Amino acid sequence: MARPRPLSGFPEWLPAGRAVERHVLGVLSRVFALHGFTEIETRAVEPLDQLLRKGETSKEVYVLRRLQEAGAAGQGGSLDAKTLGLHFDLTVPLARYVLENAGHLEFPFKRYQCQKVWRGERPQDGRFREFLQADLDVIGLGDLPFHYEVELPLAMAEALHALGIGQFRVSVNNRKLVQGFGASLGVEDMEAPLRWLDKLDKIGPAAVRSGFEGEGLSAAQADAFLRLAEIATDDADHLTHAVTSLAAEVGAGGALLDEGLAELAALLVAGGAQLPGALRANLKIARGLDYYTGSVYETVWLGQESLGSVCSGGRYDSLAQEGSQTYPGVGLSIGVTRLVSRVLALKLLEPSRISPAAVVVAVVDEASRPESDRIAAVLRSRGIPAETAPTAAKFGKQIRYAANRGIPYVWFPASSADTAMGGAGQVRDIRASQQVEADPAVWTPPLTDLAIAVGPPKDPPRD
Amino acid sequence: MARPRPLSGFPEWLPAGRAVERHVLGVLSRVFALHGFTEIETRAVEPLDQLLRKGETSKEVYVLRRLQEAGAAGQGGSLDAKTLGLHFDLTVPLARYVLENAGHLEFPFKRYQCQKVWRGERPQDGRFREFLQADLDVIGLGDLPFHYEVELPLAMAEALHALGIGQFRVSVNNRKLVQGFGASLGVEDMEAPLRWLDKLDKIGPAAVRSGFEGEGLSAAQADAFLRLAEIATDDADHLTHAVTSLAAEVGAGGALLDEGLAELAALLVAGGAQLPGALRANLKIARGLDYYTGSVYETVWLGQESLGSVCSGGRYDSLAQEGSQTYPGVGLSIGVTRLVSRVLALKLLEPSRISPAAVVVAVVDEASRPESDRIAAVLRSRGIPAETAPTAAKFGKQIRYAANRGIPYVWFPASSADTAMGGAGQVRDIRASQQVEADPAVWTPPLTDLAIAVGPPKDPPRD
Repeated sequence: MARPRPLSGFPEWLPAGRAVERHVLGVLSRVFALHGFTEIETRAVEPLDQLLRKGETSKEVYVLRRLQEAGAAGQGGSLDAKTLGLHFDLTVPLARYVLENAGHLEFPFKRYQCQKVWRGERPQDGRFREFLQADLDVIGLGDLPFHYEVELPLAMAEALHALGIGQFRVSVNNRKLVQGFGASLGVEDMEAPLRWLDKLDKIGPAAVRSGFEGEGLSAAQADAFLRLAEIATDDADHLTHAVTSLAAEVGAGGALLDEGLAELAALLVAGGAQLPGALRANLKIARGLDYYTGSVYETVWLGQESLGSVCSGGRYDSLAQEGSQTYPGVGLSIGVTRLVSRVLALKLLEPSRISPAAVVVAVVDEASRPESDRIAAVLRSRGIPAETAPTAAKFGKQIRYAANRGIPYVWFPASSADTAMGGAGQVRDIRASQQVEADPAVWTPPLTDLAIAVGPPKDPPRD
Repeated sequence: MARPRPLSGFPEWLPAGRAVERHVLGVLSRVFALHGFTEIETRAVEPLDQLLRKGETSKEVYVLRRLQEAGAAGQGGSLDAKTLGLHFDLTVPLARYVLENAGHLEFPFKRYQCQKVWRGERPQDGRFREFLQADLDVIGLGDLPFHYEVELPLAMAEALHALGIGQFRVSVNNRKLVQGFGASLGVEDMEAPLRWLDKLDKIGPAAVRSGFEGEGLSAAQADAFLRLAEIATDDADHLTHAVTSLAAEVGAGGALLDEGLAELAALLVAGGAQLPGALRANLKIARGLDYYTGSVYETVWLGQESLGSVCSGGRYDSLAQEGSQTYPGVGLSIGVTRLVSRVLALKLLEPSRISPAAVVVAVVDEASRPESDRIAAVLRSRGIPAETAPTAAKFGKQIRYAANRGIPYVWFPASSADTAMGGAGQVRDIRASQQVEADPAVWTPPLTDLAIAVGPPKDPPRD
């Protein structure tokens, strides 16, 4: 067959890139677990009707067909209740999982989930058709205290900072605040205004203003929303003052606005105490999705603003519902593939080597391969990753096999004559070209050589 | 919405089951890495024409359609060169990945890969439509020494035994031996005979014999194959004697048979030296797939034979090919979901708890939640997973929150009066009902309490 070419929108990494992605997933998982979140996985498919409940992304769903059903003519059957689609996020599956298993879960249910999702949208920089998400959510049974709206973005910010690739800032807003502000100004249906606000950074205030007016808002209402959207601060007192002044000036107010403002201020206070600089109120953050009912979050990677939000989410009072039982939730989702693709493009992290082996045991000749295998097995039994060289080539070539993979040590077995005289072989650190007598039953490399380590490049790019 | 019901063939686990699955994947990955295999992931989709190259499973492929393309009438478009399907194994993607990236990989390329695959076959016990596979392969550039046919099944056997759930035996055969045996008896095309041999355990020798005869084999040829299939031993000398005697008796022989026999005997010798009892020659093992060209492997979990082979594979001289460049390989694949579903059904492994938290910090009242958060943060900064209690309920209820999740410790913050007097709070081991004064900056639980541990149940089922 001819050499295959990559499929646009379906990224894959070479071993070095995958090592970086594993590192990112490992760091995120470690922080999530430190905070007491339990990991689950859900199946990749959901019934199509469930996927279509969340309107906005539905056009991007990939529908599945068994080839047999697709038929010889290649025509798919009709879409029906049994049609399955690939999940496009991890929130719809979580809601379904919680309902399906409610009787077997402990609430509040704190879970994290790192899986691939699929969206058939047009691939472009930072947008993929298959990508990894890492989601952190807590789901309550009937109620869910506000303090989780503080805990979740802070745990996420801690996880992102633990990656060691730069600073992240979570922009926060509160849907009650914006909704209360609008309602008191006579704007009943906030869905369209929120959608326009969400575009503010992309299209600018003038275009948003005409969008507002196209939705039937008065010039005064549009003006009030645009002034609200200008408020951005990490100081709770400043936030309270700015919002109350504006509200007084434009004639907004009411219990919902007050409640949202108090929550947003409390979020800034707790954030400032626990992770200074991580959170910032930004009242233009709207999040298009209409099911958010409290805090909403977006996260920028400082210096990489062109990526857009790398971690978003919010509070929803009814993630799932069965009869009169509701399951409120709050959560955020990291676009891991988007993050990793930028990390790789900028070479911000790299693995110390591409093979997990720490030692290549050289082979003197094929007849003595069993002796080399034995040495490798002794090393492995002590937790030292070791493999035997592929061929009994010249030692220079066997050393090159290790060097090409970044494997730091090559073990030279003693000849059988040496062994008879108690000789134990030699191990060579090929980075330092240092070689010492050693016994596989006791020799121990530095801990840092035991596994692939991922960190900033040793020779950072100059530009 | 109504309570959703599970989808047949798409298994999901509750948190405790997922902890077991993670443990299984972790143990397998650790052993694979110890042996120097590099982990990669491939995308979930391949072009349909690539998936269909491997005839046997093609009818089970899930084809993807973007909902938009599927059209309002719900009719799928025709199948064409751009049609994508979900991969049904990890071998087809590996072959494509190797060809696509050959210039960037180091050969021999030793890789492992643990991912979901999809097959639209009828769900039944141990058969799923979405399931995890763990694959171990080595791919050479042009050639690949025989010793990898020894290394791979032994590494797999070591990984399976490391799970601590019982004994596994890898049954091995050699395609050259069987092919040489057949050719020297005048059977040119071995595909059909191999397919019948593969069914021997299921349908018995009489049915296989009539199958053979239906394919045009003579009674003598059928008889010779059935006698060959009876040979099973873990002793190399016994194997050699049994095969040579039979060959002499039925008039079989030749270089190919000799080569296959020598390889199979060498495999038993090396296996006996490195992992006694793990390998057994079993000449009825055929493996239906016609691309195997050397060793073939099947693995039974002793005592769980009804599961069928939990880990299979073999040697293929041309896993991939581009022009005159071939990429021979040898590898095996574990059906992880099949294994885990049995482990869970038999309760062979269970997690020590379902939350990764080691400590719940109690909340005296909501006003002092920040102090509880601070204690939890100090513990986490020292690597101790800790979360703050969901509400300032009575301490009995907060202890129950921990107990329901198996979290071993509850921390009671000192009252502010105590703190002013230097009091440091108390930590309670709720398993032992023991409570001691403690400082979050120095208190350290036993290492075994730090993370979820997975092992045999403490109270094994009696039956």
